[in-house]
Amino acid sequence: MSERVFDIEPYAISTSRLDDSRIRLIESMTSTGNAHLGMRGNFEEGYSGDSHRGTYVAGVWFPDKTRVGWWKNGYPEYFGKVINAANLIAIDLELDGERVDLFSGRHEDFLLRLDLRNGLLTRSFTYRTESSVVRFEFARFLSIVTPELCLQRLRITVLDGTVRVRATPRIDGDVHNLDANYGEQFWSEVGRGAAPVPHLSLRTIPNPFGTPQFTVTAGMRADATGLEASGMVDAPLQAGLAFEGTLAAGASAELRKTTAVVTTRDVEEAEHVDAVRDLLGASEGRTFDDHLAAHSARWEERWARAQVVIEGDDEAQQGIQFNLFHLFSTYYGEDERLNIGPKGFTGEKYGGATYWDTEAYLVPLYLSLASPEVSRALLAYRRAQLPQARHNARQQGLAGALYPMVTFNGIECHNEWEITFEEIHRNGAIAYAIHNYTRYTGDRSYLEGPGIEVLVEIARFWADRVHFSDHAGAYMIHGVTGPNEYENNVANNWYTNTLAAWVLRYTATALDELRPGRAGELGVPADERARWREIADRMYLPYDAALAVNVQHDTFLDKDLRHTDTIPADERPLNQHWSWDRILRSCFIKQADVLQGMYLFEEDFTADELRRNFEFYEPMTVHESSLSASIHAVLAAAIGEREKAIELYRRTARLDLDNYNNDTEDGLHITSMSGAWLAIVQGFAGMRATDAGLSFRPFCPAGWSAFSFTVGYRGRVLEVRVEAELVRIALREGEPLELDVHGRREVVDGELVVSLRVQDGA
Amino acid sequence: MSERVFDIEPYAISTSRLDDSRIRLIESMTSTGNAHLGMRGNFEEGYSGDSHRGTYVAGVWFPDKTRVGWWKNGYPEYFGKVINAANLIAIDLELDGERVDLFSGRHEDFLLRLDLRNGLLTRSFTYRTESSVVRFEFARFLSIVTPELCLQRLRITVLDGTVRVRATPRIDGDVHNLDANYGEQFWSEVGRGAAPVPHLSLRTIPNPFGTPQFTVTAGMRADATGLEASGMVDAPLQAGLAFEGTLAAGASAELRKTTAVVTTRDVEEAEHVDAVRDLLGASEGRTFDDHLAAHSARWEERWARAQVVIEGDDEAQQGIQFNLFHLFSTYYGEDERLNIGPKGFTGEKYGGATYWDTEAYLVPLYLSLASPEVSRALLAYRRAQLPQARHNARQQGLAGALYPMVTFNGIECHNEWEITFEEIHRNGAIAYAIHNYTRYTGDRSYLEGPGIEVLVEIARFWADRVHFSDHAGAYMIHGVTGPNEYENNVANNWYTNTLAAWVLRYTATALDELRPGRAGELGVPADERARWREIADRMYLPYDAALAVNVQHDTFLDKDLRHTDTIPADERPLNQHWSWDRILRSCFIKQADVLQGMYLFEEDFTADELRRNFEFYEPMTVHESSLSASIHAVLAAAIGEREKAIELYRRTARLDLDNYNNDTEDGLHITSMSGAWLAIVQGFAGMRATDAGLSFRPFCPAGWSAFSFTVGYRGRVLEVRVEAELVRIALREGEPLELDVHGRREVVDGELVVSLRVQDGA
Repeated sequence: MSERVFDIEPYAISTSRLDDSRIRLIESMTSTGNAHLGMRGNFEEGYSGDSHRGTYVAGVWFPDKTRVGWWKNGYPEYFGKVINAANLIAIDLELDGERVDLFSGRHEDFLLRLDLRNGLLTRSFTYRTESSVVRFEFARFLSIVTPELCLQRLRITVLDGTVRVRATPRIDGDVHNLDANYGEQFWSEVGRGAAPVPHLSLRTIPNPFGTPQFTVTAGMRADATGLEASGMVDAPLQAGLAFEGTLAAGASAELRKTTAVVTTRDVEEAEHVDAVRDLLGASEGRTFDDHLAAHSARWEERWARAQVVIEGDDEAQQGIQFNLFHLFSTYYGEDERLNIGPKGFTGEKYGGATYWDTEAYLVPLYLSLASPEVSRALLAYRRAQLPQARHNARQQGLAGALYPMVTFNGIECHNEWEITFEEIHRNGAIAYAIHNYTRYTGDRSYLEGPGIEVLVEIARFWADRVHFSDHAGAYMIHGVTGPNEYENNVANNWYTNTLAAWVLRYTATALDELRPGRAGELGVPADERARWREIADRMYLPYDAALAVNVQHDTFLDKDLRHTDTIPADERPLNQHWSWDRILRSCFIKQADVLQGMYLFEEDFTADELRRNFEFYEPMTVHESSLSASIHAVLAAAIGEREKAIELYRRTARLDLDNYNNDTEDGLHITSMSGAWLAIVQGFAGMRATDAGLSFRPFCPAGWSAFSFTVGYRGRVLEVRVEAELVRIALREGEPLELDVHGRREVVDGELVVSLRVQDGA
Repeated sequence: MSERVFDIEPYAISTSRLDDSRIRLIESMTSTGNAHLGMRGNFEEGYSGDSHRGTYVAGVWFPDKTRVGWWKNGYPEYFGKVINAANLIAIDLELDGERVDLFSGRHEDFLLRLDLRNGLLTRSFTYRTESSVVRFEFARFLSIVTPELCLQRLRITVLDGTVRVRATPRIDGDVHNLDANYGEQFWSEVGRGAAPVPHLSLRTIPNPFGTPQFTVTAGMRADATGLEASGMVDAPLQAGLAFEGTLAAGASAELRKTTAVVTTRDVEEAEHVDAVRDLLGASEGRTFDDHLAAHSARWEERWARAQVVIEGDDEAQQGIQFNLFHLFSTYYGEDERLNIGPKGFTGEKYGGATYWDTEAYLVPLYLSLASPEVSRALLAYRRAQLPQARHNARQQGLAGALYPMVTFNGIECHNEWEITFEEIHRNGAIAYAIHNYTRYTGDRSYLEGPGIEVLVEIARFWADRVHFSDHAGAYMIHGVTGPNEYENNVANNWYTNTLAAWVLRYTATALDELRPGRAGELGVPADERARWREIADRMYLPYDAALAVNVQHDTFLDKDLRHTDTIPADERPLNQHWSWDRILRSCFIKQADVLQGMYLFEEDFTADELRRNFEFYEPMTVHESSLSASIHAVLAAAIGEREKAIELYRRTARLDLDNYNNDTEDGLHITSMSGAWLAIVQGFAGMRATDAGLSFRPFCPAGWSAFSFTVGYRGRVLEVRVEAELVRIALREGEPLELDVHGRREVVDGELVVSLRVQDGA
């Protein structure tokens, strides 16, 4: 464990320690979001120490001019970035004219708590001035019932002395991006006012790239008991209300603030003020607690489809709950125009909103834990960006479509040649997700409708990107970076070649299975399909017969092959200690590469093949990508390496909670948050959804008395509970289902109980 | 030919056309320099159209903070760049209060001429105002006798009307770098005054990297006949004198300006004003013509050692003269602290001062055309930077010394991982230059003194950089970029592996040949030398038995191998049309790679091997590096491909004159300027200096009636004249010399004449 700030509780994180060197870490961890808005766990009253104030509005971004040391032909013109939006939660606090500040002031009884079931963030502390002692209790949440709303409550109780209290809830538009040069702002104020509600409208500054500007308007309503309204805040980039009162010992006051946020993504700019007023008006009759109750009930509906319970290990429980909570706070499929950024609403690192992580790591989770519409929305997002993906391929002089490494609008905006131009396996993941959706849901309508158009264009990209090597008598793919980003520009990455061949074959087959004539309508003649099959059949896949392993790429075996235990401890992680060239030429692997491919196409390999490859590659893997441990945990479980699987589960489940990669202060690793769930469900429970249907090969990790989880599958909701010696699978919703447990065909109707004793002995 | 601006004359470039879209190109071409100072061919009176004003002071640079899109571990902290210094040549001109400006004004009879024997730059034109016609005749040169001095003369003749003339010679410190952000300046004024001479002192702004700040002081003296001194120029960043007079038709005036420049590289800042005054005082008794005569005589001394004459082809003559003139203007070995930047004093692109080009392409020329001290100064420059080269190796976690890709002070300042960390073959070129110097001069004192220290550290780098591949049973070098920069991060680049093995073997042998005990004193135990030999002996060198060629790197033959004639004309040059990944995975080669190695180690290969490799690689080579054509010309000549050799000569000789690469507006390709000489001397004359001594295999290119050149060799000066049917080798200085002509041993004492008829028939 690298660094643990929060106490162990199964369904919450809380701490009574306020370490001023860890504020950014605390802020990341206590981020909240509702898929429309999100923010780091910043303090309402401000904080004068080191901190990173961050508020983000989904789908609102800015195209910054690409700046590189050495320009390469084909680089994108701009880098799209998440931009820090107006601070919605500000409540300035003064006691006898002195600003309340936890960095410089005297305080005690601090408690910060984020409820991981409903996202209620509470914070309380007792503050001392020269002449008074005052208790503050904050509460806030972002509604998932009305996602335009942020609800806040502050209780102030004077414990000693008499004190003049001033509280100023406001919206603060004076914000900067973390990576911006000093003084650079991405917003300009286009409207502000006190009536009908205090509001502030900010528009993103113009850009020369023809991407849209966004206007975001935030309006607020505030009222108080125990304090009097004392004036408006109406200054450039500021809108709000001030409240004041003199409170004696024993007296208390309560301040309530509701903020509504709309954007030109949904509402025309001219309508913004009315929209905000209407949203605030509609919420006016209900108390903070009323809103919270409705919001919590909605969360409970989500948990009913998604809860994972680990008995006997609160640390593990907290890990999985933390991850699922933050994932659902980031994305729940309501808006097809959105995707899941690597930091979600918890920071602005990595800029863009969409990575291949979505298809590779998140779609499998949403398929099981939410209705199929959620996953389908993720697929539809890519379908909508097909024209831009064609543009990306054209940038490289290639046919078809190339989905981007990083994007907001579908246009590639990453600018590192070895990634931008070469980490093209991402294009396979987009296709695989369509297959995954179809196979899991049994619903072929997406594949046969919008999906096939995406597949055809991806297949065309691969068919153009390969070359035929006369020397080798095979199709090859040179100049790629595989999932293991600790190698660049390699020839014949096994994963990439395997995935490309699969796309070509799968797309050809999918076209064949359409109604007669449809392939012709789609403009894919039979000879094009034949050529795809020929490429797939003659694709070169590096293999070493002596070792009987798939080879990561052409010259991998020539390296100085050694295990990670030969790396001195003070040189880990490698990416913080070794120069880039040394990392590249070493054998050490950042994340699953060959194994990622064997994970995707597990049915094509024997258990022996899987084991040999795992035993060859895993010991060379440093797991310095947040996406690494989970896939290895699943595979370790599959080959019976249970201890290894559990070790890797811990790493993925508590990556942020224990700050394993020492970078959580920048924000949470949102796109790897499915890892803990994959390790539990695909790993420990051994769940697979293949063409043959659903199957399980469960075991209960040592140290856990039992674990259970709920999954949806083709109209059913199943609750699976794995104990040391048996597994119970209960059908909570839907028709009886045939499935497979440890290789035995069973039917679930009501509750199925299968003993695990035989398997354990095996 | 891409674009020809100047007329064909054998020893000058001149033009009477002033095309305002080509001013930058003209300025590059008419740059002048004297190794201490240099400047582009800017117009004295200024120019309001598109232009690039550039004045550079040798050894004066600024470390700019490294800015990259994605930081890689090991990147240097700063990028050292050439900085644009104060404009020394300014003479503002007004006629009746109206500024003279060739962009906006009416003019005729324009003539611009640079004398390529002595660097005298003259420019004249007739200018029309509303009421007058005035002729201006400028002349200027940078003295190679007193390199602190810039001498200027301006003649003004009124052809019609009566006109008030105002001429203001001044020093202008308000300058910006081409690549600087708007408003950014690298200088601040630290002194200025009118007495004892108008002067301006500028200091480079502070930097956080601990590299020295420089102060440059320029002072001037000006006088006139026909105009009266009318006042001082004394404003921030400006110092000068104004002259005025009213001239009637037929009257003329002459203005003389001498500027002296000193820097803290040579003179302490407190002494600057005195030093400048003294320099100007010492020059005062002599006229412009006196200075010019002494300067020209010094140039003639250089030409007596270096002249190349091509009879019957003025275009070719102009090409070689242009190159030699600009090379000697950039560097003539007087200052061991200096080196030869890729743009010399003609532009600021590529920033740094020193590249491996020096050792690979320029040392061979200076060895022949200047005294051995000049080449030795280039070697000493690297020896002085050995501590920094050790630092560079440490940055990569490696032992020994790694000479930088780009530098001023020896610290690497390039920041593109595939070059910075991987184009390490440069380290071999530094070692090879020591060998080359020793072999050419027969002087072992450099090798045995400072040279061996450099060699040992380079050998240690290679010994640490290789790895032993158990799989292949050989030493390998993974993760390199060879001379062909159109491939990156390859495994076992044949050139790099060959050079590394050579360094290890050469250094071990050189140590063995030192006096007994010396190797021990140098701290190189016998087992270290044994290990170097073992690595060299077991170095893996990719070779294809079927094709019987050396293989560029491990997976090169798997590419889609095709000839450059399959590239559509509108896609050339590739680097302006193809995305980087497409260039990388194509087979097309930017510049000699395997062939560069065979060029360096020609004696190790049979003529057949050379031919087979040339015929395999040259047709895949696009020659998009300015360093490519020359090496190929030499090799083409060596294998008897004379037409190819001549075609490649033209390309290298007139690269800038005909703007082949469409980038000469940025400055001249100084470090490739030896190419034309190499093509003539090593190519057409087939000169080699090996351990066996000097040899020639001459032929006279079709279209030339004869060519001749002078080379120095071990105390002799030889003049070689190659005609269609015979070669004459005359001993101009020194003892008789045994040499080899077309394989026959001959002795030169007086003049040797050898018939070429037999060889031609062969």
